[in-house]
Amino acid sequence: MRIIEKVSEMQQQADAWRQEGKRIVFVPTMGYLHQGHLDLLRTARRLGDLTLMSIFVNPSQFGPGEDYQSYPRDLDRDIRLATEVGTDVTFVPLAEEVYPEGYQTHVEVTEVTRNLCGRSRPVFLRGVATVVTKLFHIVKPHAAVFGEKDFQQLVTIRRMVRDLNMDVDIVGHPIVRESDGLAMSSRNVYLNAEQRRIALRLNQSLQRARVLVDAGERRAEALLARVKDFLTGDDGVRIDYVQLCQPETLEDVSLIDGPTLLALAAWVGPARLIDNCVLRPPS
Amino acid sequence: MRIIEKVSEMQQQADAWRQEGKRIVFVPTMGYLHQGHLDLLRTARRLGDLTLMSIFVNPSQFGPGEDYQSYPRDLDRDIRLATEVGTDVTFVPLAEEVYPEGYQTHVEVTEVTRNLCGRSRPVFLRGVATVVTKLFHIVKPHAAVFGEKDFQQLVTIRRMVRDLNMDVDIVGHPIVRESDGLAMSSRNVYLNAEQRRIALRLNQSLQRARVLVDAGERRAEALLARVKDFLTGDDGVRIDYVQLCQPETLEDVSLIDGPTLLALAAWVGPARLIDNCVLRPPS
Repeated sequence: MRIIEKVSEMQQQADAWRQEGKRIVFVPTMGYLHQGHLDLLRTARRLGDLTLMSIFVNPSQFGPGEDYQSYPRDLDRDIRLATEVGTDVTFVPLAEEVYPEGYQTHVEVTEVTRNLCGRSRPVFLRGVATVVTKLFHIVKPHAAVFGEKDFQQLVTIRRMVRDLNMDVDIVGHPIVRESDGLAMSSRNVYLNAEQRRIALRLNQSLQRARVLVDAGERRAEALLARVKDFLTGDDGVRIDYVQLCQPETLEDVSLIDGPTLLALAAWVGPARLIDNCVLRPPS
Repeated sequence: MRIIEKVSEMQQQADAWRQEGKRIVFVPTMGYLHQGHLDLLRTARRLGDLTLMSIFVNPSQFGPGEDYQSYPRDLDRDIRLATEVGTDVTFVPLAEEVYPEGYQTHVEVTEVTRNLCGRSRPVFLRGVATVVTKLFHIVKPHAAVFGEKDFQQLVTIRRMVRDLNMDVDIVGHPIVRESDGLAMSSRNVYLNAEQRRIALRLNQSLQRARVLVDAGERRAEALLARVKDFLTGDDGVRIDYVQLCQPETLEDVSLIDGPTLLALAAWVGPARLIDNCVLRPPS
């Protein structure tokens, strides 16, 4: 495993690999790796000649009062885990090279970012679009792998890549879950045992929705009411949003008459958690 | 001279040249070439192995009521002229490939775009930053050459390239002028003989400013008053702006105590013309 910190070194190395005809597959992360990340890296390894990960806790995608400072970090462990799954290079940029003095440029995707997390975290998706653009210019990948847990992030990046003619294949990877169904997240470390148990209601509420849709429910309003009711429970879960959306435009739908994204975000104790699934009504 | 229209063909060709170790130097244009463009192409030819021009009248950098529809076009003549100066490839994208259905992504540079043309043409620099980003992703140049006539455009692109870690050298080229001093512009074709004569006052007012600064004038306010007075003349010129700015941040200066950009935009009949120079006070 090679670790690269400097932007110019990364770019020169990427150019050299490209001249040799190597296919670079990239997994951008904020570190504190879990099995979900490792699955993305395994997928990347299958898709190319060089598996490249970045670790960068990107300040511009955190809003005021969010957990930028407290976001968990453990570089040594990350390097060890990524090495075990065959990652070739980890790019760990220096913050002052990513956002130099006088920095003032942003990439905005205006429509698919309005709903869902875009409502409660207005700077998040602009920060993601901008830093992914920067990382693509530094790492020069042929393909990049993103998890589907942050579905809106994936949709935003796909749209950005298409709109800006970036020559990068975007690969989505299904959500990886703990054995009891909780979606893996670096933020799960914020949960105590009781909260960890309560957090199961996120995935369970998605399962309930599946059952209801399989039983014939098509009305978004009715379904959302049932999901919110279950998710809130007696205590311990504070809903940020529960929404049913068209999976490409992320616009709200009122009737489930095709593949429909059910996405939710909720606070459990100190952790804001997200989860989602695509509902497919039986035909 | 080879003409490429499709984005995917251009990207594949660029990748192939890069694998062969060829240096691609790029001159993006809106066509209707004049000697200024041809000088950019000659410079590009000196700097690399492959000289690549694009011709695209970019709708997103024109505001409502601006001259997008009437902007002059003559592709056959452009190809002939570019061939004569040794251009290897001209990329002429299809509008529907540049802005596909559902298009919604913008690149914004927020500070250097506030002043000068950014005031009267609020969408212009966002449109330029976005389309240049797209063209860089399609053409994959090692370097790109831009004229200094649109000084703010050049500053904006330099800032964007640095902020987004684009691995492209940006080369500025001095303003090319007619023998009587009028800065070359595709929009000069809008001028009748009388307006053409009146338009000389733009460059003449820059020369006046130089004389005043050489004679010891340091106060921006006093200098701007003299320049505006001369530029307006008796009739025929309507000033959009005349400003003195720090040449990198483009912030207004009140005292000329180092290299200072004098930039102006004015309407002469149907044409909005721009010109500029960097004033250097004698030490």
